[in-house]
Amino acid sequence: MSDVGFIGLGIMGRPMAANLQAAGHRLFVLESSAAAGDFVSAGAIACKSAKAVAEQAEVIIIMVPDTPQVSDVLFGRNGVAEGISKGKIVIDMSSISPLATKEFARKINDLGAEYLDAPVSGGEVGAKAASLTIMVGGSQQSFDAVKPLFDKLGKNVTLVGGNGDGQTTKVANQIIVALTIEAVGEALLFASKAGADPALVRKALMGGFASSRVLEVHGERMIKRNFEPGFRIELHQKDLGLALEGARALGLALPNTAATQQLFNSCTALGGKSWDHSAMVKALECLASHEIGES
Amino acid sequence: MSDVGFIGLGIMGRPMAANLQAAGHRLFVLESSAAAGDFVSAGAIACKSAKAVAEQAEVIIIMVPDTPQVSDVLFGRNGVAEGISKGKIVIDMSSISPLATKEFARKINDLGAEYLDAPVSGGEVGAKAASLTIMVGGSQQSFDAVKPLFDKLGKNVTLVGGNGDGQTTKVANQIIVALTIEAVGEALLFASKAGADPALVRKALMGGFASSRVLEVHGERMIKRNFEPGFRIELHQKDLGLALEGARALGLALPNTAATQQLFNSCTALGGKSWDHSAMVKALECLASHEIGES
Repeated sequence: MSDVGFIGLGIMGRPMAANLQAAGHRLFVLESSAAAGDFVSAGAIACKSAKAVAEQAEVIIIMVPDTPQVSDVLFGRNGVAEGISKGKIVIDMSSISPLATKEFARKINDLGAEYLDAPVSGGEVGAKAASLTIMVGGSQQSFDAVKPLFDKLGKNVTLVGGNGDGQTTKVANQIIVALTIEAVGEALLFASKAGADPALVRKALMGGFASSRVLEVHGERMIKRNFEPGFRIELHQKDLGLALEGARALGLALPNTAATQQLFNSCTALGGKSWDHSAMVKALECLASHEIGES
Repeated sequence: MSDVGFIGLGIMGRPMAANLQAAGHRLFVLESSAAAGDFVSAGAIACKSAKAVAEQAEVIIIMVPDTPQVSDVLFGRNGVAEGISKGKIVIDMSSISPLATKEFARKINDLGAEYLDAPVSGGEVGAKAASLTIMVGGSQQSFDAVKPLFDKLGKNVTLVGGNGDGQTTKVANQIIVALTIEAVGEALLFASKAGADPALVRKALMGGFASSRVLEVHGERMIKRNFEPGFRIELHQKDLGLALEGARALGLALPNTAATQQLFNSCTALGGKSWDHSAMVKALECLASHEIGES
């Protein structure tokens, strides 16, 4: 698995591909990528299309923004599907629809190739530090074959189940993170408006059942008013969109996910689509005419 | 501070009082308490009224269900206010309204005595094991004076601020715990209905930003279908009631707390007021016609 195609050299993909290149893998990249030149200077092969990448690389990693882009890379004109052959492995590390993923995997399998959905969490920082959490759906055999690649990109790498289950796990992660941010926001805003010191309240809660990574990290951001991303609200909106779209398709009610998406929408109205997701508390503050820590 | 009045010998108060008695404190209890006999056999003094308790003990601890009961113990006929005098300290360890607490404290202070609000978390298990988290509001001086008592009842003992701030912190705690349970419920139900194994999803999420004590403890309960309390839904309903009543009084919107209270209400409709609060997921399951882990 030394030859790796890497399609999608954006904020996440670029540092991930760089980690693979630094580990000695020969990369195949799209010559149309803005970042292609840097990789080619370091030995990567520039390709004219996703089809050409799939023809030359054994493993094709995709890291693009959303479901339609993955569909286009795979099944569009001169896409991966036109160049793939038996024994090759497609790894979609984008965060996209679990339901569409099952369909994509079936179509790739029909061409004789393998498919893994392997979305990540940990953001740009985790991508650079090769400390991403990677949630994988697919066969044990394919997972074992590319595990050494995953280990160059992340730290917590879990095969959760069959195709789609990696994306499902990512959606579950984003539901919990968003709703826990919202919970911490309501609690600290209540405390502040009731006249307590939110920093001392947060500290008192850290040892008990209310403790979480979000109370620790995002709670501190709310108190210190540090809303530089981090993880941007517009990206989390996309992920909750996948949850709500999935809920509708599966027949499932997600009442607090739906309400929390509205608060993200409100943040966009307040000018904050690029704020860190912890800034969701600003929508709550707006409703209360009170900012956490204000006396 | 060797003589301690203890009013409210219920599920929580009884083991707490027993810990103080075992540590050598002479207790003053209401003779009308069902549990009074056991304490008297071990050396406690039975009193005819809260007034009599306040006349004889230096510190008067109250551990009763809700705001009206605290009000009655303090200011009802033959209540604490009639027996209290300068230098004595009232400690309300019940979980009640932060706003009413400020009023109660002011009235006790007007009588020359001190007041601490010191609600706890950790439940019956924590009360028995003397491992409660204790969130205290009041003066540093009073806190220091009774800290040795708190240390015989709990482990994480924090003076958060002035009177009311202990209760505010407890409400903040209960908001976060309820909403995080709800978040974990939505996420695991989504994963299960999408066909993933909720136990593997939970495991994959434990290392990342979605990690929390609730994902660990209550998430496992949801998967193992273990809804024996633990902490009963009807008690958490009372606490979210304090949050929503406080929000209305303070001018504050708590959208997800409000929605989550409705799910607790639904659990009551399903026969579950005495289920553990993690069983909130049953209301979500009811809406989805699907139980977590069902294939």
